[in-house]
Amino acid sequence: MPGTATPRPAGLNSTADLPKPPGLHWNVRAKQPVAYSVSMVRGLLDPENPTLAHACGGGWGRPFRSLVVIDAAVDALYRDRFEAYFAHWRIEATWQVVQGDEEAKYLEQAVLVTEAMSRMGILRRAEKVVAVGGGVVLDIVGFAASMYRRGVPYVRVPTTLIGQIDAGIGVKTGINYGHHKNRLGSYFAPELALIDPEFLRTIDPRHVANGMAEIVKMALVKDAALFDLLEATAGTITADTLAGCGSAVSEVLSRAISGMLDELEPNLWEQVLERSVDYGHTFSPSLELRADPPLLHGEAVAVDMAICLALAHLRGHLSQEDTGRALKLMQDLGLPVAHPTFTRELLEEALGDAVKHRDGLQRVPLTRGIGSVVFANDLTPEELGRALDFVTGWKATRNGELAGAAI
Amino acid sequence: MPGTATPRPAGLNSTADLPKPPGLHWNVRAKQPVAYSVSMVRGLLDPENPTLAHACGGGWGRPFRSLVVIDAAVDALYRDRFEAYFAHWRIEATWQVVQGDEEAKYLEQAVLVTEAMSRMGILRRAEKVVAVGGGVVLDIVGFAASMYRRGVPYVRVPTTLIGQIDAGIGVKTGINYGHHKNRLGSYFAPELALIDPEFLRTIDPRHVANGMAEIVKMALVKDAALFDLLEATAGTITADTLAGCGSAVSEVLSRAISGMLDELEPNLWEQVLERSVDYGHTFSPSLELRADPPLLHGEAVAVDMAICLALAHLRGHLSQEDTGRALKLMQDLGLPVAHPTFTRELLEEALGDAVKHRDGLQRVPLTRGIGSVVFANDLTPEELGRALDFVTGWKATRNGELAGAAI
Ligand SMILES: NC(=O)c1ccc[n+]([C@@H]2O[C@H](COP(=O)([O-])OP(=O)(O)OC[C@H]3O[C@@H](n4cnc5c(N)ncnc54)[C@H](O)[C@@H]3O)[C@@H](O)[C@H]2O)c1
Ligand SMILES: NC(=O)c1ccc[n+]([C@@H]2O[C@H](COP(=O)([O-])OP(=O)(O)OC[C@H]3O[C@@H](n4cnc5c(N)ncnc54)[C@H](O)[C@@H]3O)[C@@H](O)[C@H]2O)c1
Repeated sequence: MPGTATPRPAGLNSTADLPKPPGLHWNVRAKQPVAYSVSMVRGLLDPENPTLAHACGGGWGRPFRSLVVIDAAVDALYRDRFEAYFAHWRIEATWQVVQGDEEAKYLEQAVLVTEAMSRMGILRRAEKVVAVGGGVVLDIVGFAASMYRRGVPYVRVPTTLIGQIDAGIGVKTGINYGHHKNRLGSYFAPELALIDPEFLRTIDPRHVANGMAEIVKMALVKDAALFDLLEATAGTITADTLAGCGSAVSEVLSRAISGMLDELEPNLWEQVLERSVDYGHTFSPSLELRADPPLLHGEAVAVDMAICLALAHLRGHLSQEDTGRALKLMQDLGLPVAHPTFTRELLEEALGDAVKHRDGLQRVPLTRGIGSVVFANDLTPEELGRALDFVTGWKATRNGELAGAAI
Repeated sequence: MPGTATPRPAGLNSTADLPKPPGLHWNVRAKQPVAYSVSMVRGLLDPENPTLAHACGGGWGRPFRSLVVIDAAVDALYRDRFEAYFAHWRIEATWQVVQGDEEAKYLEQAVLVTEAMSRMGILRRAEKVVAVGGGVVLDIVGFAASMYRRGVPYVRVPTTLIGQIDAGIGVKTGINYGHHKNRLGSYFAPELALIDPEFLRTIDPRHVANGMAEIVKMALVKDAALFDLLEATAGTITADTLAGCGSAVSEVLSRAISGMLDELEPNLWEQVLERSVDYGHTFSPSLELRADPPLLHGEAVAVDMAICLALAHLRGHLSQEDTGRALKLMQDLGLPVAHPTFTRELLEEALGDAVKHRDGLQRVPLTRGIGSVVFANDLTPEELGRALDFVTGWKATRNGELAGAAI
């Protein structure tokens, strides 16, 4: 490799050769293998079940250390069960409690987690960090694990619906910075994500709907059968039925996870910036920042998806009927489809931000029929305005119908 | 991939299978390709030379933006030349000046750099961050570039000797945290590193010696011919001769770079923790922290290498003559081989820290003859003490000889 003269250094945008100065030129090439697993596991904290202990690297008789970084809400509800479980398997847990919720997702929290690693003197590869909580805590801990000594292995135990079907199963980590969502972060795969729907029993209804928004997204962009299933079950989905994980729920969750992993695996580092999983994520970051009282991530995504459904419809990609079905499904799941903060001006501004994040092009995913996607690079302000009007109009009509039906 | 049942999730240490719970299991597998180049370039700021402009993604006629993050010392010395160069090639540079030196290598500086990216609204892939400076600034900017939007491309222009043969050409980034060297960081390759020895004209003699320590390291662990060349030229190496880059200097630099890249390329992410480039880096981090007045990185490395030469000699891996040659070479280059802070207690403590960083084993590289390496996992405190005595004794004898010769 040293001294090899190749026409063009990696990553340069130009097609012309760099002139060879009187000097030397080396190319470095390597491939980093990344491998992790996602398991749906019932009874994760059942003392008979060694899965979590083995994920920690222990559970084989002799004592073994782990750093457990746990969401404050989960700590309050499940700490006793975790402690009994770890005692049974001789996992010597060092505990670090971290606040969940979007406002807590800042750099200092990630640094706190690295300090806990340092205090414990965690070994660089053998001992694990276990992250237990919602998307916020998972993102914080993942970022901390990626930074500490340039990366220590970690295991994710997502405890919210968003965590179990989205934040907990990919490789992205992040924290918010200076009014920007996930402005700092990394790509850093966990060793393993363990999904036990039982944790969902204690999430509140708003966080159920929040997670369902991302499941609707997966259905819209790639899984028409999942969309049908959601239409059929929307009325029955609650924290309890999710936790019970009967056959319909189990199919909803596993289809959502499969779909997400299918999309992520070939594009783990976002080499391709046209990502169908970015559906509903073009305008929503700005809405999430601006809405007061604040919206949850999935709620903002739902409002964004409603605009994108209208855009697709106006472009002739989606029938009036399917547009209505999708909007209705979101409402039935308790999700907003419109929001007063969403003005034409905000939409334009949000699109400008997205263009920077997408390296100069809009790359807005739109549905082409339910279950498939097309990317738009030529949305106009005028079109955004008409989409906004369409959603507002649809909502008024439906509310009218509902009111009529109720009479 | 979804639903594929494989016997064992990635990364688990155990050999036994995880029990398959009533649930589902997915494996995600991918390889991240990494490619970058290192070029030695004379006349990087010569307006005729498009290399740097092309590295920025511009220089093709129309204006193009870059964020240039520059070491304060380099800014003071070279800013005018950079500005003239960029003006010529229509690179619209946004400037961010960052302090060099070890004390400035903290998280807040990396965050400042990400703020500059945010203010400029840098595009995520097309526009580049250009890092110009010593190892400290390169490490800070590399870390910032890896975090911002989970990674934006950057180009390195190292301006110190350490930068040109070590810090600037690998993939590691980092900042110090809470009395720990490089405690937080990432693996994040630049697109390109451009090495112009002309920058070395203005570094002070102590930083020349500092860089030479890492070159001696490469010679000791893998390049006996480089060692001979260093012995032959040690007396002539100065900032001016380095910058002049005559044939001997050019060979020293290119052998050092080639050797380093040969070692790094197959092990970019330190999958293997037995790294010959860690030679001299077992005890030195603790010494760097403790020494007062502070030691430079390469100076601490030299003191560590002296201990390792003695350890190798005491184990019969290195002849008395070669041990003496190596110690003498370091002294001739103006490097310390002993330090009052280096007590047996400190050596033991430092080894304990290294063991954590090396996942539970010592993995101390020792020379086996000049130009080759063997790893030790069984160093005893007693042996450390004897090595310390050996170096002190050698130094006293040589100083006596020198004094004698001077009479
Ligand atoms: N990394 C990714 O790929 C990715 C993907 C999607 C979303 N995200 C991020 O995830 C975050 C949203 O995640 P979230 O919706 O889980 O929010 P969250 O983490 O804030 O959790 C919501 C609330 O539920 C609490 N909680 C967690 N588990 C609970 C349980 N079992 N019972 C009761 N309460 C519980 C939390 O303490 C918090 O108050 C956002 O910051 C978003 O950016 C990341
Ligand atoms: N990432 C890696 O793989 C790696 C490898 C080796 C070392 N490092 C790091 O590199 C750092 C040491 O780097 P360094 O020795 O370059 O120190 P440095 O960056 O502090 O530079 C030394 C001094 O020289 C000044 N300077 C820089 N270029 C100059 C020039 N051309 N003329 C005059 N002055 C100039 C700087 O402002 C500073 O005051 C350490 O923090 C070490 O951890 C990193």
